[in-house]
Amino acid sequence: MTFLPQEIIRTKRDGGALADQDIRAFVRGLTDGSVGEGQVAALAMAIFFRGMSRDESVSLTLAMRDSGDVLAWPELDRPVVDKHSTGGVGDNVSLMLAPIAAACGLAVPMISGRGLGHTGGTLDKMESIPGYQAMPASALFRKVVGEVGCAIIGQTGNLAPADKRFYAIRDVTGTVESIPLITASILSKKLAAGLSALVMDVKFGNGAFMADRESATRLARSLVSVAGGAGMPTTALLTDMNQPLASAAGNAVEVANAVAFLTGSADPRLAEVTLALAAEMLVSGGLATDTVEGLASARAALDSGRAAEIFGRMVHALGGPADLVEDCGRHLPAAPLIVELAAPEAGWVAEYDARGVGLAVVALGGGRVRPSDPVDHAVGITGLLPVGSRVEKGAPLACVHARGEDQLADARSRLMKAIRVADARPAATPAILDRIA
Amino acid sequence: MTFLPQEIIRTKRDGGALADQDIRAFVRGLTDGSVGEGQVAALAMAIFFRGMSRDESVSLTLAMRDSGDVLAWPELDRPVVDKHSTGGVGDNVSLMLAPIAAACGLAVPMISGRGLGHTGGTLDKMESIPGYQAMPASALFRKVVGEVGCAIIGQTGNLAPADKRFYAIRDVTGTVESIPLITASILSKKLAAGLSALVMDVKFGNGAFMADRESATRLARSLVSVAGGAGMPTTALLTDMNQPLASAAGNAVEVANAVAFLTGSADPRLAEVTLALAAEMLVSGGLATDTVEGLASARAALDSGRAAEIFGRMVHALGGPADLVEDCGRHLPAAPLIVELAAPEAGWVAEYDARGVGLAVVALGGGRVRPSDPVDHAVGITGLLPVGSRVEKGAPLACVHARGEDQLADARSRLMKAIRVADARPAATPAILDRIA
Repeated sequence: MTFLPQEIIRTKRDGGALADQDIRAFVRGLTDGSVGEGQVAALAMAIFFRGMSRDESVSLTLAMRDSGDVLAWPELDRPVVDKHSTGGVGDNVSLMLAPIAAACGLAVPMISGRGLGHTGGTLDKMESIPGYQAMPASALFRKVVGEVGCAIIGQTGNLAPADKRFYAIRDVTGTVESIPLITASILSKKLAAGLSALVMDVKFGNGAFMADRESATRLARSLVSVAGGAGMPTTALLTDMNQPLASAAGNAVEVANAVAFLTGSADPRLAEVTLALAAEMLVSGGLATDTVEGLASARAALDSGRAAEIFGRMVHALGGPADLVEDCGRHLPAAPLIVELAAPEAGWVAEYDARGVGLAVVALGGGRVRPSDPVDHAVGITGLLPVGSRVEKGAPLACVHARGEDQLADARSRLMKAIRVADARPAATPAILDRIA
Repeated sequence: MTFLPQEIIRTKRDGGALADQDIRAFVRGLTDGSVGEGQVAALAMAIFFRGMSRDESVSLTLAMRDSGDVLAWPELDRPVVDKHSTGGVGDNVSLMLAPIAAACGLAVPMISGRGLGHTGGTLDKMESIPGYQAMPASALFRKVVGEVGCAIIGQTGNLAPADKRFYAIRDVTGTVESIPLITASILSKKLAAGLSALVMDVKFGNGAFMADRESATRLARSLVSVAGGAGMPTTALLTDMNQPLASAAGNAVEVANAVAFLTGSADPRLAEVTLALAAEMLVSGGLATDTVEGLASARAALDSGRAAEIFGRMVHALGGPADLVEDCGRHLPAAPLIVELAAPEAGWVAEYDARGVGLAVVALGGGRVRPSDPVDHAVGITGLLPVGSRVEKGAPLACVHARGEDQLADARSRLMKAIRVADARPAATPAILDRIA
């Protein structure tokens, strides 16, 4: 039978289920361009309204995985596990998690993205390290994963090209916010990276892609269920993104924060999330029998300095300085203006608009409005206090690292609006709300 | 504020109402190409699911009207009124209706379309007349409307170009079947033609675009309501398309049928619908106080031969023969094979698959599968009997006009399946089911 994209669109539009072969044909057309942009957008909108069954989602995910190269790691004798986060502010978890997991015996080929809008990107952070090759040749990538245990790089090669076109179309057609489409987008790339297991950090809150806990839970359930159906065991943690996770937000400042974390000065909420994710990875990879054991291994890898050592070796193996961990202040770019933001009144840090903090970083030049925008790696924010912190009048609420006075003023005014100081001590909010397996 | 198509899509997707200025901006982008095909398709699909309020539909219709030229008829001292049909099989109403209405004092600048799929097109039918210029220069079109009272032509110039692109995208993205979009597509072109009033023939049944009466009623209500909101008084008749309306289906054969109608041999159901539509036009145009008076005027114009005379003058003014009405058999192309289809058993014509009759015409070469297909004007079907007719075994059920044996065989087999002869006399079904004003 001839493949007619409009018939597939109509079937979904009218609430029918799409057959695996129909989804495969559509994704082939999506990849080779024979299915038109309008047809892709119309199907995306129909899926937005009608949803997809688990079988349909698995078919879509596998078809998108198979649209390009699918990596395999036969040379490794370690379980290949990665983490993916739905994105947040002050979220430099990956920088510590990859070396902790590697120190515990996993292989972590971590293919990361760039920041866009208020959320930062792991790749931009790593590129603030002088000399770091975030887009290495395939052979170097494999060599570093094999020898060091982890490598944080950007997407090279041709992994899930269907997702690239699909996402570009969804982005301009109001069809991003669909759980089955988000699920297939995330998982197709992770499956193409050849992982044996995955851990998801699904964030919710005013700095996350999903604002409310219910949507985030639905997404987490979909990811875990579809990944399982696609043969990649996956668990998810539901974490809070109503405040920056680290005390720093930006690029070089988050690398410095990560180095501090690995060398003994970890922000407590960040440590809680990072170690919990590491424990999930170890259980999924079969290197721990449960998360208690996984947590203990991860903690030991961190406290012993083995994770820090692996991070340093990874940075050096990918072109960065040999002594970044030892002397990161000397290597990382610094902004010319570093100014404290003083609390106007005494009180408690009661609430953040975490998105506003992210947009303050964008205002400083440390993030992007459009994917093609350049990023100033030196700028950012440090000294962010967790919700519940006591501040006295005039004491620092945060510290702004700016390129110039204009950006400084813009970021300060945004930050002042994004941090609410109140008279009453706020209730404590946990960083990890749920585990979905 | 910057116009962001994706924000408009999102608003509609989430069930919000679109502002007039947003709709105008979207339609401008649709016309100049700055709104992408995916964005057009996504909005169409969101409208499919969410619908549009009357205000939104009026805005969309007027914005599409204003996307190109808008005709005006200051030189005419007559009301300018037209009819539009949602399309059917054996529906040559326009050919008689235009001259009847003109004979009663209306001006009828009838801009018609070509056939596609199982439905015929008025333009194709007129082009079966040798010499007839269906695409005249604007000056000739205006001259004929002014001097004769009516002119049946194809779309020339640049009327509602937004609709052209919109329809082409909807056609391949499963977004044709949306009442507000169909409404805007039909009305924008009629408004651009500068009409003072419109009559709609909304057909339902197995040969119509809308299969069931409920959908057709919804469409008719939408058309009447939105046209009123856009300042073009419109009434609609809901008519039955579960059997061919005329006894002929094709191109030249429907012209011959029209000439017979105008000269005293009208198919009864066709006459009922044609005269009722004429009465609606006369009332809308202010030339009759009610449909009873309108019907009497229309009947008089037909019976007196004035409508036939006007048809003849129109054909001649647009390049056709001067004596088509007097001697149409000599002028119209004839098919080489004309073969009767004999009833296999005696009985009553109980049911048609009207779409199947239309597809038999396509099989003969008299219709199109793709818009670019050529049309054989000579072929078609005549002698179709209305439901409820008695036939004896071996008596003709229809007569097939074919170019060759293969097409003849294909059309015969399709026709045999499309006409059901039964033992019992079927219940009578009215041709006009409802009037919506």
